[in-house]
Amino acid sequence: MLRFVVTRPHGKGGGPFLFPPEKTVAGVGERALLAHLRRRIPVPPGVILGPGDDAALVATGPLTVMTADTMVEGVHFRREWSSARQVGRKALSVNLSDVGAMAGRARYATVSLCLPGDLPLSWVDGLYDGLLERAAEVQVALVGGNVSGIDGPVVIDVALLGESARPLRRGGARPGDVLLVTGSLGLAAAGLALLWAGAQLPEDAAPERACLRAQLDPDPPLAFAAALAEAAGVHAGMDLSDGLSGDLLALCAESGLAALVHADALPLGPPLGAGDPLELALHGGEDYQLLLAAGPTHVDALQALAREHGVRLTAIGACEAGPAAVWLEQDGRRTPLPPRAHQHFAAREDGSA
Amino acid sequence: MLRFVVTRPHGKGGGPFLFPPEKTVAGVGERALLAHLRRRIPVPPGVILGPGDDAALVATGPLTVMTADTMVEGVHFRREWSSARQVGRKALSVNLSDVGAMAGRARYATVSLCLPGDLPLSWVDGLYDGLLERAAEVQVALVGGNVSGIDGPVVIDVALLGESARPLRRGGARPGDVLLVTGSLGLAAAGLALLWAGAQLPEDAAPERACLRAQLDPDPPLAFAAALAEAAGVHAGMDLSDGLSGDLLALCAESGLAALVHADALPLGPPLGAGDPLELALHGGEDYQLLLAAGPTHVDALQALAREHGVRLTAIGACEAGPAAVWLEQDGRRTPLPPRAHQHFAAREDGSA
Repeated sequence: MLRFVVTRPHGKGGGPFLFPPEKTVAGVGERALLAHLRRRIPVPPGVILGPGDDAALVATGPLTVMTADTMVEGVHFRREWSSARQVGRKALSVNLSDVGAMAGRARYATVSLCLPGDLPLSWVDGLYDGLLERAAEVQVALVGGNVSGIDGPVVIDVALLGESARPLRRGGARPGDVLLVTGSLGLAAAGLALLWAGAQLPEDAAPERACLRAQLDPDPPLAFAAALAEAAGVHAGMDLSDGLSGDLLALCAESGLAALVHADALPLGPPLGAGDPLELALHGGEDYQLLLAAGPTHVDALQALAREHGVRLTAIGACEAGPAAVWLEQDGRRTPLPPRAHQHFAAREDGSA
Repeated sequence: MLRFVVTRPHGKGGGPFLFPPEKTVAGVGERALLAHLRRRIPVPPGVILGPGDDAALVATGPLTVMTADTMVEGVHFRREWSSARQVGRKALSVNLSDVGAMAGRARYATVSLCLPGDLPLSWVDGLYDGLLERAAEVQVALVGGNVSGIDGPVVIDVALLGESARPLRRGGARPGDVLLVTGSLGLAAAGLALLWAGAQLPEDAAPERACLRAQLDPDPPLAFAAALAEAAGVHAGMDLSDGLSGDLLALCAESGLAALVHADALPLGPPLGAGDPLELALHGGEDYQLLLAAGPTHVDALQALAREHGVRLTAIGACEAGPAAVWLEQDGRRTPLPPRAHQHFAAREDGSA
């Protein structure tokens, strides 16, 4: 529960600590580990006071976007499937996706780590490689954090602050709005299925690699998301993290309306034997793409904005008056689409992950 | 990794979910649990958008204090020693202490929970009883959070934002400054020792109860801390969370000077057979009191300010020119005081907690 303190337990003045890679977290001690991590963190503009004091001090505007999300080993990642660097990148990306979904730009993050004592320090350094690399890509400053021991799995919790000139909420969609999604849906879920199947991929397995990347190192459309603060006609938006069926129902509930999804309009992933692409697109989690509801006359301008950002934007259906519900139209038939997102506890109860 | 979503899995319109107290986290499911928790959270002024969207939106000033701290079951609390309500209160209090130590006022918090599937829901509700009660006491808004499963101990990570007109840093102390501490030191460490000893306390054991309370439900001097933003002559400050010896060394390192502590000036706890009160005051962690360095001519005014807030403020020593080090003066002799704070990993390595 120590913060990044400045004491130097070994009495060394300058220069980085150099730990042998085979050292464990327990073998180095919490203070030395924190001092080591702290030295790796740059302090960019906007950060008045970075790691090392009781708290950070950051420059903010009148309206701040705030979110926090957690990655738990065994639930959200496995050390045998993800490199430490990928875990670090994803821990930041899942939060970046949330700030983006408010049409926000992320600025400052804190990182809370729970580390078992036998964890190799090389893994912690790899985690920070990923965190720092991803933070630099999106100009986010790591301004503080803490490290705790745990008799259990690795836990990484990131809290993220951002700013938005005109935040995009889940409520606000109107009957007649067009529903749009970025990217392809179901890739991350297909990637997870491939990992479970122990996929050994040939060199030329490009679609499989795209799915694994979507699962292990998601890339939310952040610049396009931030640009939505200036775009006209976008009435509601959210990120797709728990699967379209559940997430769209959440948007419906917040907006007080129903939604119709056209099955043949969905931007599906490739058929890989990792599950039915339509099922994965409807119910697979962790896409970290955007779901938007926009006035029909604004769709062309949004498509142009998406193209400017190299983002695929697909109209998948429309909002309708009525009680909160999602309907699927397929082969001319209209059926209810109940949410079937992954629920970690429920899944764990029956023995699966 | 779900946020507090608004979907109502059981199709119920209004009214709180009523879970039988014997239900477990796994038995209810993540979405229903989040919807349940979300309904308990009020949305006070300053919160433009509370739990339920991709992120929260909060009103901020130009300078924001940001911190995050974690409580891990088995490392920072035990369910057999703390009630769920106490754990919730302490999870917020340790963060409040950090914002207070910047002469700040806390405003907004997110709460990330990792919950094993067999955890009773009544425990989660008790945790939120404590979080909400403590938040109301200090006018902090819980603006968001997330719940994850974990195959391991309960983890509670709180990220906290605050504001400060004139932040108080660890660096900035000057040679000749008087060192001051609030409250008594070593109470929380004595409380921990009592818990380890399995203390069954008689009804009239007031000193013991004060120590247990300091350990289980710390009460940092928050109003006094915030008032320090307006006080003259306070050059540096921090909270005492890892023990005076280590924390004061951190202040020395940040300020580039040495410190002398007078052993007989320290505000010790009562002798309880739970350890030497002087040792506990010097090295015991989790006091969550303030350590200040102030110009000698300002000490009387600070004492008066402390009295106004019902806070005990004690001069314990002075800052000196020299390399970062802490010296202890006892019985006319001056000896180095090396840091001996609890280091979770190191402690776990040799089998103790």
